[in-house]
Amino acid sequence: MTITSNAVRGRTDLCTAIENELSGLIDKRASAATAYGADFARLWALAGQNVLGGKFVRPLLLMETYDALHKHGPAEPHQRETAISIAAAIELLHYAFLLHDDVIDGDLVRRGHPNLIGSLLAEAGETARTDGADGARAGSGLHWAQTGGILMGDMLLAATHQAFARAELPHELRLRLLDLLEHTINETVAGEQLDVGLGDGIIAPDLQTILMMCGYKTATYTFELPLRAAATLAGADFAVENALATAGRHLGLAFQLQDDLLSTFGDPRRHGKDPFSDLREGKETAIIAHARTTTVWPDIEPFFGRPELSVGDGEHVRRHLSDCGAEVFVQGLIEEQLQAFNNQLTSTIPASVRNVLLDLAGQLEGRQS
Amino acid sequence: MTITSNAVRGRTDLCTAIENELSGLIDKRASAATAYGADFARLWALAGQNVLGGKFVRPLLLMETYDALHKHGPAEPHQRETAISIAAAIELLHYAFLLHDDVIDGDLVRRGHPNLIGSLLAEAGETARTDGADGARAGSGLHWAQTGGILMGDMLLAATHQAFARAELPHELRLRLLDLLEHTINETVAGEQLDVGLGDGIIAPDLQTILMMCGYKTATYTFELPLRAAATLAGADFAVENALATAGRHLGLAFQLQDDLLSTFGDPRRHGKDPFSDLREGKETAIIAHARTTTVWPDIEPFFGRPELSVGDGEHVRRHLSDCGAEVFVQGLIEEQLQAFNNQLTSTIPASVRNVLLDLAGQLEGRQS
Repeated sequence: MTITSNAVRGRTDLCTAIENELSGLIDKRASAATAYGADFARLWALAGQNVLGGKFVRPLLLMETYDALHKHGPAEPHQRETAISIAAAIELLHYAFLLHDDVIDGDLVRRGHPNLIGSLLAEAGETARTDGADGARAGSGLHWAQTGGILMGDMLLAATHQAFARAELPHELRLRLLDLLEHTINETVAGEQLDVGLGDGIIAPDLQTILMMCGYKTATYTFELPLRAAATLAGADFAVENALATAGRHLGLAFQLQDDLLSTFGDPRRHGKDPFSDLREGKETAIIAHARTTTVWPDIEPFFGRPELSVGDGEHVRRHLSDCGAEVFVQGLIEEQLQAFNNQLTSTIPASVRNVLLDLAGQLEGRQS
Repeated sequence: MTITSNAVRGRTDLCTAIENELSGLIDKRASAATAYGADFARLWALAGQNVLGGKFVRPLLLMETYDALHKHGPAEPHQRETAISIAAAIELLHYAFLLHDDVIDGDLVRRGHPNLIGSLLAEAGETARTDGADGARAGSGLHWAQTGGILMGDMLLAATHQAFARAELPHELRLRLLDLLEHTINETVAGEQLDVGLGDGIIAPDLQTILMMCGYKTATYTFELPLRAAATLAGADFAVENALATAGRHLGLAFQLQDDLLSTFGDPRRHGKDPFSDLREGKETAIIAHARTTTVWPDIEPFFGRPELSVGDGEHVRRHLSDCGAEVFVQGLIEEQLQAFNNQLTSTIPASVRNVLLDLAGQLEGRQS
């Protein structure tokens, strides 16, 4: 039991340290922003609320891995502070990606609350009614709000790079982290482009492309980046870094595939999302890619990507997707990824770090949301 | 005459050096991009064409100022190479801003040619007709193309920061350049937000706000950034840097105001733009801000911001704008800015650098496009 309490206490301390670092990065910019007027300052205020309300999945993975790599002798305090600054920067990068993704997808809500764009849109409506301007033009509130999303994403992307560029490290090590950041951004952007191309019907939706998209768009920056950064910062061997990155990619893909299963087959009272949103959007997932190869596809296709899909039709499609074996097929893909993940947990990765990864993998079991 | 030839030769050499540096930065990324498929590589190919087809206004200003600050003893070759890498990075930043601006404004054309978004849109139409995918969904070509604009802008913003972060300079100097980059991005983003807020009718269009917007959106990164970077890289006194920055801001504002005058009153056979596009868009310029304060505004307002404005109506509005004194008023503002610019050309700024600035200011005279 003591072990659990220590682990819980450790995570709480880490969350506090990450939150403090993020507050510092954001507050400095938010107060400088006031010089440019209320609308500009509002961007930073909203971004701050959203970033600080997050779960810090990526910075926690970085710091827990970093600390585990130092199991036989803690890091120097100032080195650990640098690691925390990189961990916080990765959270800013995550939020920059989310914002541009929301602009691209036209989303105004995230996890049941207005996102930054949704908040700006609501406020623009109020401004147009009350201030001295000629009044907002038709459709301009959304344009204004999405512009805010693009611009705030740019500033967060800039802030991420600033933190990496200023990291108090030997220049060689800083250059390695900058290489990692560049690789991560390219791969995530490539994944986002694939996702949009699939959704827009520009790129053919075969299974291999969809799996590649999932890996690039999510696994790279959510799992591989924090793990590689932790290894670099802790001075681990390149073999350790590579084994961690490979394990992370497999785990990331398993999480993404499970997300798709939950969205389609999960209990909406648990995950809190519209149970048919993926079907209504026409989202090209591994589930759909499998269904396309079966004889039931002609019964599914007329309903796929229909924004006005009724609950009855949605349940009809879901039953077909299950009956044609798509659900079992994707469960099998998840098993394969978890197997490949387990195969990486050899002696190359120190036991203390294996526990961090196994703890993360454990969150997959019995996940409902 | 020898002076002119040397100056011309010097500029040609500089253009070649900047072009080589930009080619290097882009080619490296373009070839890495091929690993992620043809669509991703296409983004870099298009960006490369557009960036390398530019006039390099900002990098030339940086390098000419840098060289002028070294008049009494040339810079060490490796230091000068670092300056060229920063100059090239500033051109990438310019292009990142242009791309996100084009997404925000819904523009598909720049200087009479399809921009990156316009090219992607044209190609998406062809793809949808010929490849094996189910075919592009309605309106999806534009969505795909604008997504490409957002994502490529992100990668160019990242590439700009990478160049600054990797500059081979003492860490202190690199930090000063990173501060400058951060300040520039914040101010440019604030200017872009003001511009969109004015256009969307969210922000009241008074003259002071419009002049602030022009300064932030254009003068900061086009004039102040290259001049400050040159001073920092050349090790100039902070007093020199500040005098250069102030002079640059005034000149930048004069250029922007002149752009507005040319768009509305200039000869379209010379500037090549739709002579009524600013009126059709309802662009809030200093010209319009002045007209609003006169008795003719009720005659102009019904036509302002009307996309379907006829040539006859456009000419009617233009005559009113001239008769009400708006043209003369903005000419007066330009004179004020040029006077303030001249007032900065004191002995604080070395004579050689003053010539670079006077040469630039000279381009304002008799400008038709």
